[in-house]
Order: sequence, then C-alpha cells, then structure tokens
Amino acid sequence: MRYSQLFGKTSKTAPADADSVNAQLLTKGGFIAKQMAGVYNYLPLGLRVLTKIQNIIREEMNAIGGNEILMPALTLEESYKETGRDVVLADILFKSEGRDGSKMVLNPTCEEVITPLVKKFVFSHRDLPLAVYQIQNKFRNEPRAKSGLLRGREFNMKDLYSFHKDENDLNEYYEKAKQAYFNIYNRVGLGDITVLTYASGGAFSKYSHEFQTLTDIGEDTIYLCEKCKVAVNKEIIDEQKACPSCGNKKLIEQKAVEVGNIFKLRTKFSDAFSFYYADENGKQKIVEMGTYGIGPSRLMGALVEVFHDDKGIIWPEAVAPYQYHLLTIGKEAEAAKAGEKLYADLLKKDTEVLYDDRDASPGAKLADADLLGIPTRLVISKKTLEKNSVEVKKRNEKEAKLVALSVIASEAKQSQT
Amino acid sequence: MRYSQLFGKTSKTAPADADSVNAQLLTKGGFIAKQMAGVYNYLPLGLRVLTKIQNIIREEMNAIGGNEILMPALTLEESYKETGRDVVLADILFKSEGRDGSKMVLNPTCEEVITPLVKKFVFSHRDLPLAVYQIQNKFRNEPRAKSGLLRGREFNMKDLYSFHKDENDLNEYYEKAKQAYFNIYNRVGLGDITVLTYASGGAFSKYSHEFQTLTDIGEDTIYLCEKCKVAVNKEIIDEQKACPSCGNKKLIEQKAVEVGNIFKLRTKFSDAFSFYYADENGKQKIVEMGTYGIGPSRLMGALVEVFHDDKGIIWPEAVAPYQYHLLTIGKEAEAAKAGEKLYADLLKKDTEVLYDDRDASPGAKLADADLLGIPTRLVISKKTLEKNSVEVKKRNEKEAKLVALSVIASEAKQSQT
Repeated sequence: MRYSQLFGKTSKTAPADADSVNAQLLTKGGFIAKQMAGVYNYLPLGLRVLTKIQNIIREEMNAIGGNEILMPALTLEESYKETGRDVVLADILFKSEGRDGSKMVLNPTCEEVITPLVKKFVFSHRDLPLAVYQIQNKFRNEPRAKSGLLRGREFNMKDLYSFHKDENDLNEYYEKAKQAYFNIYNRVGLGDITVLTYASGGAFSKYSHEFQTLTDIGEDTIYLCEKCKVAVNKEIIDEQKACPSCGNKKLIEQKAVEVGNIFKLRTKFSDAFSFYYADENGKQKIVEMGTYGIGPSRLMGALVEVFHDDKGIIWPEAVAPYQYHLLTIGKEAEAAKAGEKLYADLLKKDTEVLYDDRDASPGAKLADADLLGIPTRLVISKKTLEKNSVEVKKRNEKEAKLVALSVIASEAKQSQT
Repeated sequence: MRYSQLFGKTSKTAPADADSVNAQLLTKGGFIAKQMAGVYNYLPLGLRVLTKIQNIIREEMNAIGGNEILMPALTLEESYKETGRDVVLADILFKSEGRDGSKMVLNPTCEEVITPLVKKFVFSHRDLPLAVYQIQNKFRNEPRAKSGLLRGREFNMKDLYSFHKDENDLNEYYEKAKQAYFNIYNRVGLGDITVLTYASGGAFSKYSHEFQTLTDIGEDTIYLCEKCKVAVNKEIIDEQKACPSCGNKKLIEQKAVEVGNIFKLRTKFSDAFSFYYADENGKQKIVEMGTYGIGPSRLMGALVEVFHDDKGIIWPEAVAPYQYHLLTIGKEAEAAKAGEKLYADLLKKDTEVLYDDRDASPGAKLADADLLGIPTRLVISKKTLEKNSVEVKKRNEKEAKLVALSVIASEAKQSQT
C-alpha cells in the first residue's frame, strides 16, 4: 500500500479528550477516529489490525469446534423480560422502538438470542455438545465510556456459547475453551503477562474466570499468587483471603486490564427458555450452558497499552497492519527509483508492505514510522545505495543493519492472510 | 464439514410467515433463522454464503481504489440535523438515547458519518480523489419488513463514498464504479439478467442509477429498452416517455428487484458540513461526492429468488457455501468407509466439502442435498462401488455420471477462500 493513497494520515497532536495511551496513539497514527464518547471509526490501518485479531480468535474458536454464525443487534425486549435481564441490565441497555410500537434492545451480549435459537435445532442428546460463536458489534450504554478502545459503548466482541448434556461435559469443554483463550493471548503477544483470574460465578457456579493483562493502565485490582501464577479479584480475596488454587495467603496486589472472561452459565438461560433435550432413555433433561467472551477491539486497545514507547506503537507481528514499512530518504532520483523497485519486488513476493512514497522530510517519515509501529522498517538513502543496500531496523530493537538490495525481497516474509 | 456437526439443520416445513421463496428456502435449508420481522440470524451455511458475496464485492471495491474502513452503527442525531435528514428520513430512522441524554440514530446509510470523517483528513487537491467504503449492518425502521432478506430492518450493506475536486472527476469515477457493479453481478451469476436502470437524481443530478435484476418476485416496475439494454423506472418514464439513452419510445414493462444503486450526491453533503479543499491556486472549493450502495444480504435473497427449483436452491459456484456435497447411500459398512476415505482425501486437497455423515434414509439425504443447493453432489453406494466409482451430479443439470474413486479427489476444485 502506498501511504500517499491510504485514507487516514498521522497527526502531530492527539485530541484533547484522548484519555489513554491507546486512544492517543491510535488516533495520532490514523488507526481510529472518535465518533462520540465510546464509539469509534476504524480507518484502514485500524481495520487491518482489528481483522487480524479477529482471525486469530476465529481460528482458535474453530479449533475447539465452534460453529460461526451471525446474530443481529436488534432484539425484542420481551426476550430480556423472560430472563429478567431487562431489570438486571437496565442501566446499560440501549433501547429502540419499531414503527409498530415494538420495544427493542441493542444486544449487550446475546444469551437471549442464542438460547432460543439453539433450542430450535437441539432436541436430543445426539445434538449435544454444541458450540456456537459470532464476531459482531455489541452495545452498552456505559455512563462513562473511557480509555479509548478499552471501554466502549459500541464495541466489537467475540461471544461463544456452549451447550451440554450435563455438568461434567460443560466442565470438560470449559477447560478446552480456557486453553483456547491462552492460545489467543500467546499468539497476539500477551501470553506472558496475562493471568487467569478467579472471579465470582454468581448464583450458579463457584467461580467464573477473567483473563487479566498486567499493564500500567490497569483498570482492575487483582491479587496475584506467585506460587501458581493465577490471580483472584477483589470480591474473591475478601471472601476467601487465599488463593483458591493453592491456598497461598500472600498475594500481591496488581492493577490489570480484563481482556476476556469465561463463565459457566449452568442452567440460568436454559431454565428461562425451557430448553430441554431427550437423554439416552428419552427423558427430558435441562441443557447446561457456558459463555465465553473476548473483545477484539478491547484487545487492540490493550495491545497498544502494553506495546508502545514514547515514539509510538510497537505492534507484534501477528497483529501488525503491515509487516514492512518502506521509506526513502533524500531528494535523489536514484533513491526514489530504488524505493519504487523494492516496493514492486516486495508486492510480487506477496509481502505486506506500507510504502511511504510522500515527498516529506526524513524526520517526518522516520517519526511516522515509529508512530505507526510496523515491525520492520526498510530505509533507502544515498548512503545505503552506495553499498547497494537497504537499512533494516526492527521497531522493537535499537540497532539497524544493512542488507543487500539483491536479497531483501527474497528474504521477506510472505503475507499470512 | 460433517453435516452431523454443523449447527442449523434442514426442516421439512417453512415457517408460516415466510412470505417469499428466499425466506422459505433459506429457512428450510438452515441458512437463516428469523429473529423478528426483517431481522435474521445467519447460521453457518448462510454466513458462508454472505461472506463469499461480501468478499467478491470487497475485491471489486479494492480494484477501483476503495479504502476499506468500519464506521459505527450509533451516531448522534445532531449530525442528521445538519443535513436535514432527521426530517427527510424521520419515518425510517431507528433512534436510541445515551444515559447522558444524548439523542442517537442507528445509521440507515453513513453520509452523515463519512463526510465529517473524510473532512478531517482532506485539505488539498492533492488529497483527492478519494474512495472509502465499508461492509456493515444498517438499520431501517421499515413499516412492513417483508420478502425475507430482500427488505430488512437490520441488513448488511456495502456503502462506498467517493470524493472529488470537480464534477468531471466525479463523472469519471462514477463510470468506473458502474463497471465494478457489473463485475459483481457477473461474478455472482446475475450479469445476464441485471440491467442498469435510470432513476431520479434528486435536486443535484439528472439521473441516479439502480441495478435491477429481472425476477418473478419483482418488487419494482421498470421499463426495459430492448435497443440499448437499459431500463428506466416509473418516475422517469412518466416524465420523459422515452429511453434516456437512445430515445426509443417502445419500452417493455417488467417487474424486477433492485440489487444496487449509485448516486451522484454532488455537493449535498459537502455543503451541509462545509467540506472544502484548496485547489492548485490555494483557492477554497467545495468537494464533489458520489455514493454507491449494494446489500450483500439482499443480494443473497435475490440469488435464491433467481436460482431455485421446486426442490430447493441452486447456488452459483462463486457464492455456494461448499462446492461439494458428499453422501453415502445404504447400510453397507463398505459405503460408509469409502465415504470417510473420500471425505478425508477431499479435505487433504483443501476442497470445500460438506459431508452428510448422518445415519439417515437415502431419500432424506438426497432431498436435503437438493434443498441446500451445493453445486456438485457426490454419491457413494454399493452400486457405484461395484464400479469403483462415485456418482457425480451437478445441481443445475439432470444427468449424473460415474467418476472413478481414484481420480475424483485429484480432479476436485481447490478452495478459493
């Protein structure tokens, strides 16, 4: 992609109301643009990152047997009355109304849609277990949308729902889903600093689990057990005074940001919608359910909070909008020509490359490369051309090296998408 | 994919309120499930079709320089007051409200979002022309949502917006977009029966254009000029009494379904948002705009209206959920074993295959294959195995042929996705 033709350029200043590192850097870099509090536009660079995160999540959900579907945003309010969540969630529901007077809700999650939907197709123990997910926008009428992509009023979410014949089967699948979540954090580069955190399971299950990434922005206080590398949230520590996994009482207070949660719903929603199946003996039994959420847009914000320096973003390769950021320095026609040639060679190799072809100062181009945070920067100048070379520098390293122009394209990474 | 593990099975009866062929067949086939009037869930098979249509559209938009972005559904109502569309569109706007009392609209199209957004980044003639698009759900508070996926209250839409320094540049791009639209209809198999139709251009342009597909369901009356293969809508024919392209006065009345529209907005929205650019001499000039819409979900409905028979859907290859529908007939272990082996071989070849591995009657399996409409059916039975063969039948042909088991996998089409 030629930077000159890319919609959404960098700006030197972040908007005054950008209250977090991710909002500042993503806005300055031209990844996102705020529509209103908690609602963002994704510009081409931002949409590329979001899509890569979604695809990693999609692959991991498919790997644990998830069937991808797409549910709507609009749902009749009466479905929420059946579960009582019209009251429980009243504060955060966006509502609307049809011309026929029908009352509607913009789904904040989709238990009220998926449970009756799956009930239409599941009748027997032979239809279970079943796992269904979607990647779609959700709506929450937050009183104070804040922290950029971390807490939105309209945000992207992957929600998986699993359906089981009994608690044992739910428990088994729950462990698989837990592992899939760790795979996701590992793949996007957050594995080392993301911990499983015990949280309240509500009335139906002893615990639910959050995945918390340790960062400076940390919105949540968690208590880390260094013995077994899990954490507990405030509610659990106040009640139990110890790690639920090993009993250790010396837990370390940390601030973290939640990047996912999984929850055994048990029969909360199958009860509400009378969702039964026929077991091996033809007896009607209630369906057990689990729910598993992760927000690709929130994860994008968390990644920027973790991976940045004072110059800009430092994207991990797996989610970077492009793998290479090519630019030329100097007014010499020779450099521009070599830049064009290398760009063409990289495209031929099916490489993800952003080519800064603007007539801008070296300082501006280099500063933008640091701000955008693409993993590998390639610089061509009169100096590098004297050695028939290109300067190669990783965004997360200090040192640059010279690589011969004749080999750079052949060594370049092919696009994975 | 094993049919036994696919979420969303066929049903023998369509819901009583399915008022169109597409709603009936897509529901019976387990492609979609109605949430409420004009609002649908996409089950795995339906989502695969929708995604294929979206990807074809995406490729054609990228080919004419479209930058893909993603705008939100929620927008402040005040943006609509600036253009007067809070009044013009009042009947079809879904509205909501934030907890802070802010009035919001669920976007029915995105001119009120894209114009101020692009204005943030475009200042000079050097930043033009620019084309930006998204593929995203839109909301219209239709009084009578009907005809399945053809007229929804929440529906999927690709909306492209183009920005130009003058009318000539807009006109040139408009012709390119027109061709891109024809490419899309050709690729999904509707090219031969989709005609460019002159419609009113409103106050700012003589004509806009619709793309109308000639089908039995035809919601719109159009007048076809057989000389130059374009059509005009009722408004234009009443005013002009002749084909605007060749002057021919003998036009043939037809019923058709609209599958896209393109429109020269000229300066309607740039005026409303004071969107100017500096020309070569530094003089401020108003930006010219075009808008180009196509609904992937509506197109999916139109495809079913066109491509079906009394047994079910007949998907064109380009949008089919899978390319091959494999099934075995008979209780012999031999047939099941050969089915499993062929399924494994096809997967190894990266082929899109749906394998009906259920223990169901031959009649049920064959009827489901016809209903689902996957282009190529592969049947293994005792009879075909006696000739070491598989029966190959195209959904849109009457005759089947025998193909040797040893060559079928090697001749199979690889997945394009």
